[in-house]
Amino acid sequence: MIITAVDPFYLKLPVVTDAADGTQDTVLIRIRADNGMEGWGECDASPLVTIATYCCPMSHGNIINLRESLVGETLETVEDIERLHKKALRNGLDIQQIHHAYSGADIALWDLLGKHLGQPVCRLLGEGEAHPKIPYASVLFEETPEATRERAEFLKSQGYRAAKFGWGPMGRYDEACDVALVREVRRGLGEDAHLMVDAGVAWGHDAETAYARAVAFAPYHPTWLEEPLLPDAVEAYAALQRMKPPVPIAGGEGSGRLRDAADVIQNGGLDFVQIDVGRIGGITTAYAVRQMAERQGIQYVNHTFKSHLSVAASLHVFATAEAFRFLEYPAEDSPLAHDLATRLERDADGLVRLNEAPGLGVDVNLDCAREYLQPLHIEMAGETLYETPEL
Amino acid sequence: MIITAVDPFYLKLPVVTDAADGTQDTVLIRIRADNGMEGWGECDASPLVTIATYCCPMSHGNIINLRESLVGETLETVEDIERLHKKALRNGLDIQQIHHAYSGADIALWDLLGKHLGQPVCRLLGEGEAHPKIPYASVLFEETPEATRERAEFLKSQGYRAAKFGWGPMGRYDEACDVALVREVRRGLGEDAHLMVDAGVAWGHDAETAYARAVAFAPYHPTWLEEPLLPDAVEAYAALQRMKPPVPIAGGEGSGRLRDAADVIQNGGLDFVQIDVGRIGGITTAYAVRQMAERQGIQYVNHTFKSHLSVAASLHVFATAEAFRFLEYPAEDSPLAHDLATRLERDADGLVRLNEAPGLGVDVNLDCAREYLQPLHIEMAGETLYETPEL
Repeated sequence: MIITAVDPFYLKLPVVTDAADGTQDTVLIRIRADNGMEGWGECDASPLVTIATYCCPMSHGNIINLRESLVGETLETVEDIERLHKKALRNGLDIQQIHHAYSGADIALWDLLGKHLGQPVCRLLGEGEAHPKIPYASVLFEETPEATRERAEFLKSQGYRAAKFGWGPMGRYDEACDVALVREVRRGLGEDAHLMVDAGVAWGHDAETAYARAVAFAPYHPTWLEEPLLPDAVEAYAALQRMKPPVPIAGGEGSGRLRDAADVIQNGGLDFVQIDVGRIGGITTAYAVRQMAERQGIQYVNHTFKSHLSVAASLHVFATAEAFRFLEYPAEDSPLAHDLATRLERDADGLVRLNEAPGLGVDVNLDCAREYLQPLHIEMAGETLYETPEL
Repeated sequence: MIITAVDPFYLKLPVVTDAADGTQDTVLIRIRADNGMEGWGECDASPLVTIATYCCPMSHGNIINLRESLVGETLETVEDIERLHKKALRNGLDIQQIHHAYSGADIALWDLLGKHLGQPVCRLLGEGEAHPKIPYASVLFEETPEATRERAEFLKSQGYRAAKFGWGPMGRYDEACDVALVREVRRGLGEDAHLMVDAGVAWGHDAETAYARAVAFAPYHPTWLEEPLLPDAVEAYAALQRMKPPVPIAGGEGSGRLRDAADVIQNGGLDFVQIDVGRIGGITTAYAVRQMAERQGIQYVNHTFKSHLSVAASLHVFATAEAFRFLEYPAEDSPLAHDLATRLERDADGLVRLNEAPGLGVDVNLDCAREYLQPLHIEMAGETLYETPEL
């Protein structure tokens, strides 16, 4: 089939706050082919900056936009997806945003190819059975330890056996405040639950404080301490690991390129690498990181704080890797997380499985998408560069 | 002083081709303060994607645009510049384009602060005398070896004692063709000139071919072989260096973050690190790489293929480092390279010196800027996000 249209859409809730909650807006990518089929993807990225990457005028041979790279191309095989990945990133060599932006296109191409070939994406990626994962409810810390405990109790009452709390007041005050937050999550979830702590880059490049917090949190036996440091603080991650913290260290969600992930794995020494399929260049790149994690003997986990379209895309990447047990499962209360695509619900065992239908196995809820769609118009010297297409 | 306006401008030649010539368009950044002063910067980046980074609606606490981060802020000291750098990059943690886009703002802030304090930027950055540099004329290979030789002869007739040829047909055909290009540059420039070869990422991740070309080019004694591999091919750079090529290896222009530069220096083993002040986050980040190069005992060089505003900003970064001798000096024939800002002309010795006036020491040619200015309009749901300001 021939790619006939590559359309990004800007979706947004009426009110957006500065909380670290990525479910307040999104950018959906729809790719259509000449056989009438379509595939869908989603980026975890600034919608406007991402859409600009789809329509920016050519600056020279290393700044060519994504529509130009894809429209008119042939898509029949997995090799075509790999070829287009290489072409789009090479054409956009000097567009820093290219990986964030291409992520949604790559996901949509896998969805489209899977539908075309009648295969689920995980089957196109490689051999092996798709295994269920332990979903961990991913939410933000509340403003107080007490409210955080109530949130944890609620998640427990919802049947979650694993939960991650992050950002919010973590790291804002002193060690006692940070510890109180973790302690109350543990109280709320109960002793048997998997508890993950996301420090939300609170300590920048300061490995000593990160180490001190790992020690202070250890009595509550978190499964990991996530992003105690900035994504690019690779030397600080290495320094932290040399101190042998008593809690495994997770990170990597900020990886925008395959090399960023390789760098923080090899030189930062992560125990869990967390990859956002909507940032790193899509399923194609994320799968390469999964394989890298398998070779390195570390754990791969998705980073996902978007809709279930992104949950599904993430899960296809590592469903066939039985050793990678956890699935980040957005549990913030936003229609752009819950209603935008077919949900991958927990089964009777509390686990999440892929829907092994062709493509990603989820559908976009067009009514929801239309409700939050933002009409966008970009015009230069009288020429329209982007106009929100019909949805 | 208080920052009152942060304005990006899209400039473009009437015709843009897919040649690897970065002087076909540009984005200028103007920052104004409440005392009536203004500073100017330039990004080597996609203008549209960059402007989107200045005006994108907030997505959450990690996607906040550059205007929002800067307007209303205080600027009195170098510490303010460092504080704003940290703030802007932290607010834009999840905008991949943030470093490319912030580069122009950081340059403009240094220019503005230098004017405010009556000091050249190099003096604000550190101690030491500003040294002249050997400018190397930076041009593209012509389509044939013969035409390339003529171009080299022309540069020699213009008094250049150093020149770099890059991109174009290099790497497109076989080794004999690649060697013919280098041989004819040497013939055209003469035996005494510094000759640099820019392979324009021709061999991707293929260290063996890069090594073979270094061997084949060695009889023409190039000063360096630049970007034989992709910017993120750090493991391939390391493999290439393990083979001990007979020509020094240069790279790093693709670094969009300080960590990218550190990675390719420490793990790729570059001999020359080439930093674009208009991509890596401005003068502030480039100066950190210069210091890193000094510690590592490797050579720092600017990467510049824009106007003399960028040449000046680049030169302030390493003018006081006598050991770093070469200055990339754009010599393609474009008004956006030659006429957009006061030129740093070669002196009687053929060297280039800073103008040690306050700030960057160059002025923007507003007539030129207005001639190539593109009126741009970005509107979402009836709200104007960006409208080209008066210039």
